[in-house]
Amino acid sequence: MARPLPFSVEPWGISLHGLHIDHLPQSESVFALSNGHLGWRGTLDEREPFGRPGAYLNGVFESHRMPYAEAGYGYPESGDTIIDIPDGTIMRTLIGDEPLDLRTGEVLDHEQCLDFRAGTLRRQTTWRSPAGVTIRLTSTRLVSLTHRSIGAIRYEVAALDVPVTVSVQSEIVVGGSANIPHPDPHVAETLGQPYIPIAQHAVRSRATLIHRTQHSGIAVTCAMDHTLTGPASTTSSTEVSQDLGRSTVAATLASGEVLRLDKFVGHEYSRDLTPDALRDRAEAAVDEAKRMGFDALADAQRTYLAAFWDIGDVVVEGDERLQQAIRFALFHILQASVRAEGRPIPGKGLTGRGYGGNAFWDTESFVLPVLDYLLPQAARDVLSWRHATLGHARERATELHLAGAAFPWRTLEGDESSGYWPAGTVAFHINADITAAALHHMRATGDQRFAREIAVDLIVETARLWTSLGRFDDDGVFHIDGVTGPDEYSAIADDNLYTNVMAQQNLESAAELSERYEEAAAALGVTAEERAGWRRAATAMSIPYDAKRGVHSQSAGFTEHERWDFDSMPPSDYPLQNHYPYFDLYRKQVVKQADLVLALYFRHDAFTLEQKTRDFAYYEELTVRDSSLSAAVQAVVAAEVGHLELAADYVAEAACMDIDDLHGDTANGLHIASLAGVWTALTAGYGGLRHDDDALHFGPRLPPSLTRMRFGLVVTGRELRVNVHGDHTEYTLVAGESLEITHFGESVLLQAGQPVTLRTPPRPDPGPRPSQPRGRSPRTIVGDD
Amino acid sequence: MARPLPFSVEPWGISLHGLHIDHLPQSESVFALSNGHLGWRGTLDEREPFGRPGAYLNGVFESHRMPYAEAGYGYPESGDTIIDIPDGTIMRTLIGDEPLDLRTGEVLDHEQCLDFRAGTLRRQTTWRSPAGVTIRLTSTRLVSLTHRSIGAIRYEVAALDVPVTVSVQSEIVVGGSANIPHPDPHVAETLGQPYIPIAQHAVRSRATLIHRTQHSGIAVTCAMDHTLTGPASTTSSTEVSQDLGRSTVAATLASGEVLRLDKFVGHEYSRDLTPDALRDRAEAAVDEAKRMGFDALADAQRTYLAAFWDIGDVVVEGDERLQQAIRFALFHILQASVRAEGRPIPGKGLTGRGYGGNAFWDTESFVLPVLDYLLPQAARDVLSWRHATLGHARERATELHLAGAAFPWRTLEGDESSGYWPAGTVAFHINADITAAALHHMRATGDQRFAREIAVDLIVETARLWTSLGRFDDDGVFHIDGVTGPDEYSAIADDNLYTNVMAQQNLESAAELSERYEEAAAALGVTAEERAGWRRAATAMSIPYDAKRGVHSQSAGFTEHERWDFDSMPPSDYPLQNHYPYFDLYRKQVVKQADLVLALYFRHDAFTLEQKTRDFAYYEELTVRDSSLSAAVQAVVAAEVGHLELAADYVAEAACMDIDDLHGDTANGLHIASLAGVWTALTAGYGGLRHDDDALHFGPRLPPSLTRMRFGLVVTGRELRVNVHGDHTEYTLVAGESLEITHFGESVLLQAGQPVTLRTPPRPDPGPRPSQPRGRSPRTIVGDD
Repeated sequence: MARPLPFSVEPWGISLHGLHIDHLPQSESVFALSNGHLGWRGTLDEREPFGRPGAYLNGVFESHRMPYAEAGYGYPESGDTIIDIPDGTIMRTLIGDEPLDLRTGEVLDHEQCLDFRAGTLRRQTTWRSPAGVTIRLTSTRLVSLTHRSIGAIRYEVAALDVPVTVSVQSEIVVGGSANIPHPDPHVAETLGQPYIPIAQHAVRSRATLIHRTQHSGIAVTCAMDHTLTGPASTTSSTEVSQDLGRSTVAATLASGEVLRLDKFVGHEYSRDLTPDALRDRAEAAVDEAKRMGFDALADAQRTYLAAFWDIGDVVVEGDERLQQAIRFALFHILQASVRAEGRPIPGKGLTGRGYGGNAFWDTESFVLPVLDYLLPQAARDVLSWRHATLGHARERATELHLAGAAFPWRTLEGDESSGYWPAGTVAFHINADITAAALHHMRATGDQRFAREIAVDLIVETARLWTSLGRFDDDGVFHIDGVTGPDEYSAIADDNLYTNVMAQQNLESAAELSERYEEAAAALGVTAEERAGWRRAATAMSIPYDAKRGVHSQSAGFTEHERWDFDSMPPSDYPLQNHYPYFDLYRKQVVKQADLVLALYFRHDAFTLEQKTRDFAYYEELTVRDSSLSAAVQAVVAAEVGHLELAADYVAEAACMDIDDLHGDTANGLHIASLAGVWTALTAGYGGLRHDDDALHFGPRLPPSLTRMRFGLVVTGRELRVNVHGDHTEYTLVAGESLEITHFGESVLLQAGQPVTLRTPPRPDPGPRPSQPRGRSPRTIVGDD
Repeated sequence: MARPLPFSVEPWGISLHGLHIDHLPQSESVFALSNGHLGWRGTLDEREPFGRPGAYLNGVFESHRMPYAEAGYGYPESGDTIIDIPDGTIMRTLIGDEPLDLRTGEVLDHEQCLDFRAGTLRRQTTWRSPAGVTIRLTSTRLVSLTHRSIGAIRYEVAALDVPVTVSVQSEIVVGGSANIPHPDPHVAETLGQPYIPIAQHAVRSRATLIHRTQHSGIAVTCAMDHTLTGPASTTSSTEVSQDLGRSTVAATLASGEVLRLDKFVGHEYSRDLTPDALRDRAEAAVDEAKRMGFDALADAQRTYLAAFWDIGDVVVEGDERLQQAIRFALFHILQASVRAEGRPIPGKGLTGRGYGGNAFWDTESFVLPVLDYLLPQAARDVLSWRHATLGHARERATELHLAGAAFPWRTLEGDESSGYWPAGTVAFHINADITAAALHHMRATGDQRFAREIAVDLIVETARLWTSLGRFDDDGVFHIDGVTGPDEYSAIADDNLYTNVMAQQNLESAAELSERYEEAAAALGVTAEERAGWRRAATAMSIPYDAKRGVHSQSAGFTEHERWDFDSMPPSDYPLQNHYPYFDLYRKQVVKQADLVLALYFRHDAFTLEQKTRDFAYYEELTVRDSSLSAAVQAVVAAEVGHLELAADYVAEAACMDIDDLHGDTANGLHIASLAGVWTALTAGYGGLRHDDDALHFGPRLPPSLTRMRFGLVVTGRELRVNVHGDHTEYTLVAGESLEITHFGESVLLQAGQPVTLRTPPRPDPGPRPSQPRGRSPRTIVGDD
């Protein structure tokens, strides 16, 4: 497998030179802009040629029926899927009488560049038309981090040799991607054309379209306005029709002259507001953006990002590609979350339609622990959104004859939208994952109000789920039977260890928090007896262990099962789920993604180093990483047990997941959780970062490939910088009250402005490097397997 | 629950007096006529009012896409479902100017009667029209057992008081039931109107319609002709249009005069023949039927049935309802199978559209063992059909990365059509069930050619499946992991005992048969080494046993699981699958239908009486009988271990399954396997019939409710009659070579014409009567729970 696209290697951006038509679906994802509320894929301004164009608002979706060949009790009847909004990115250009289309004429030069500090997508193209006229097209796009509903484009056409008449149609188009393949075929079928036009308005250079979705009943407004700079000959006019808003600007440019159009696009949606109110809001946003002007918007963007990078930047010395990848990852995590404000963070952010724009456990388990340190407000917003869906989760629990709350495996609005229950309904661990995210948020922020108003509800209601879902056997051991853990190749198992240890933490913390926040707990009707029940279940929790092999068992009996026959299988059979029936995967020892190994990280307190070392080695031989959520976790545990070179290989794989399209589906959007995993792999892996109730732990140790790593994080409002060298680490508390940390188990009290330097102890000897299934060793250099 | 319909209790038929409009869907099933090739539901001649009208040909179906909310490897992409054929039953009548419609005017008398000896559905109605004219309508329908493609109706209208003009439209209608609810909603949606009209012909009183299905490409022809008897004033004419053939007959009847129309309807279908050839065949059949005349067809029917009853009749003294029910059952089993000839026997026969007309394991496991003794040729035909689908089963095995053949759980044409793999794909036991059916057929018939040409292929290829599906563990024990047994409330389990003991028999018999039929085995490439492997796996087969509880475990660990909480659940929550999610059913001890208990019967040789007694008692407490396939099996094992009163209660439940609509879905067709179970419950239960390779065993013992039971069976061509009394049994070999049987283990050599009378030993004491889950004791008197 060759690296699919020759992206640049540079520290603060990612660029692609030349037009790679076959790979547009991927590059549009890589170059996507978003603020968590509005997302624009990195399409060409002139729209065609395109890969899978799309513009999205977090919260604009359509509902569709869920089909089943055989229906069953508790199967969700409808699902929600994100849909394209009216697309305001389109700028079609005529050079003389010829449409600018890079598939015609001659592309003399073409480049797109995503700039992590500017927060823009720049594009520059030099093109000779079939008639021989050469122009330069430059555009700069941004989705504003400071003005939530605004996207803006500076679009410039320059005549390079001969005078030429240029005409630009700046558009909002509805339904323009109706014929583009949808990642879920059945959804595409049931969706059809999702919008009904409601109203259109054109006033001077401003155009506004208002639509409503057919089934979900969401009104969506898109407005655009323009600021024009060009020669005296420039003319413009604006028109609207049902599914189109268009401003046409024309000018005759002398050689060297430039026509510039600054386009401001505003978006609003609502299920409640009248179309008039929506129009007012979108137009007000556009008016304000136009008043500020493009330069001011771009400055605000840069300022916002400077503050983010000041805290969040991770510097790695010794690996330029890793340096770029970690910033690429952080930039997209920021983009996916910063202005989501009460909406979920979809698995793909707003970079594509993969998973129908739905959110899963990976938000809480992989993304929030990063946001807690870098953008804590965004993390709080996501947990507040979960909290707002508690009613749905309680209803779902009742439907399943369970107590408390059962949060959905896949959702947009809080209802279960997963159509395959063995990997949906029974992946109950999501409830403990939400609890873990709430606990981590409390530790990282110390936010008492969050604890009282959000966390207690989430944690108590999920604890109730666990006691109703599990049972004590005759010997007093607590079991949770028939559930699916993170490893989707081993569904419907008894006592999945990951689920059990996470549920254990859920139960213990419910008991503890309901004592600490008595009032909130009383409002939920928590009694001392109930608390005692949680503690009893937690204490009696079954932890499957195979004494014969000396390792923990992923679930009851797992290690007794037949091993998958990796060796007699062609490597082209990965991912296995596309080539083998579920039943065969389920009944054998083969692991799709870190499951027990994830437990070793998330519940690091529950295992000894020796156990971790043995368990890790055992599951390495079984783990095929057919999920993007695995490599980073394997990196973390590999580093902890001392396999630093292996950790480095996993870090490299996680880092190039989307840039090198390792899973072949970056076209449908970026893997946001995997991107978050890069940060985790570096900080928790190399940095040894673990955050317990008692303290913040570090155990920094670099792999041979790196000479230095520096990262920062905000802990309970205090900024901490960690500067890791080969043989020592420097900790700096920038300001605020003193902070206790541990360095390889040794307690240190950091005082603001007083850096502390501590030596790195010798690394443990974990034994020989564990092996992976044939062909599934980490993909360190693309093309090696 | 009250008995839904007041059916008569009579020995040789079943009648319903009065019009029960709300229960037409059920009575149409009860009164269905069929010969296994052609099926007519028991609709009123005038069609309206109707319940779920339908006419079917075994082999006329439409294909449809199988929808999935989330698709997976190996999921069937399309399914087949039986569809209505052009319906030739319809006779619409005008009395004066008023349509005969029992919802108008006054029904003075109305009765339908299915006659088990005549093989007809008789209907008689006395009706006063809204204008006050009284007529008597009499019809007699038959689906010919001797002329496979022919259905016929004698339709008579008599004027009772005043002279009246009567007009009868005798029709063939296509698509007449398009708007009637389909049992599978998704199928109804994708089907739409399945037929394209090809040609229509009207010649004198004969009309012929030819259609073709849209997707499955099956051409279907329906032709009708008439013989008319009426007063001199009688006129007639015949017309055809695309979806309608109609003969209109009119006459003015004086009081007491009768207009009689004998209608002959012929059917043909093919994927290969030209429309002209099909037309020729259907019209030839109709011409021949018309030439014979209705009376001759009816005589042939009666003669055919007399021969069947002579062998097959079961006489029970002491229970009139049971007497009726067993004949009802035998009549419908005959109807479902006798002329199927190379087509499967659907789960509902040709009595309704339930399960889309697909066939399941229940044909081989429940229906064929009955047919083997009563209609052996029909049993052979079904196994020949299975054999003809071997190519599909081999492909399916390959698709699943398995060896040999994997027969489909649900099918019409040999391809897997089950849309839910935990209860479809992994219900691999169907392969051992097919083997068991082939073995039983060989024992019952001694058919060497069948053994050589059919059985060896089926048994060897399924044995190959088992060795590839199972595995030896480190201790040399053979396991079959991750499969589903008969109990659909416990899916995807390791070492399902039923599956394992049936697979064991499959493997052993493959080894044995491939030695006995060397040539056939050599053609399949069977080697001595392969044979040894089968024997090794069979010998090492894991048989889960719970030593602590002293019972066999339905699957590995089953008895360790939590018990379903039957007591705190409302009885309205049955069937459980409609009120609880699968995951919860799967992980707890609750049994939908006899699973381990079925193994105690089918592999009766593998368990001691003491084991059977203990196992039966244990599983009685867990079995809810949400499947119609359970009561008869529980009756058999209850009788064997000595719980004769409990057996009688289960026999009663099985016997009234459809007549009393116990499962609430008789509307979609009769439960053919459950009907077969009634015979099995009587012969294997009370009669103790077991058939091993070495001999035919009996152990007859009547429950207190019966004073006598007599049944007959054909064994290797010899007719045997068994006459069971309270304290002795008389065995009579009617003719042929001597036959060895056992009576309670004692060997007896029967000689033709020399009845042997043997005493019944005292029954074993099985301990206290086992209890069932609350509200799930056998439904002995309808209305008791």
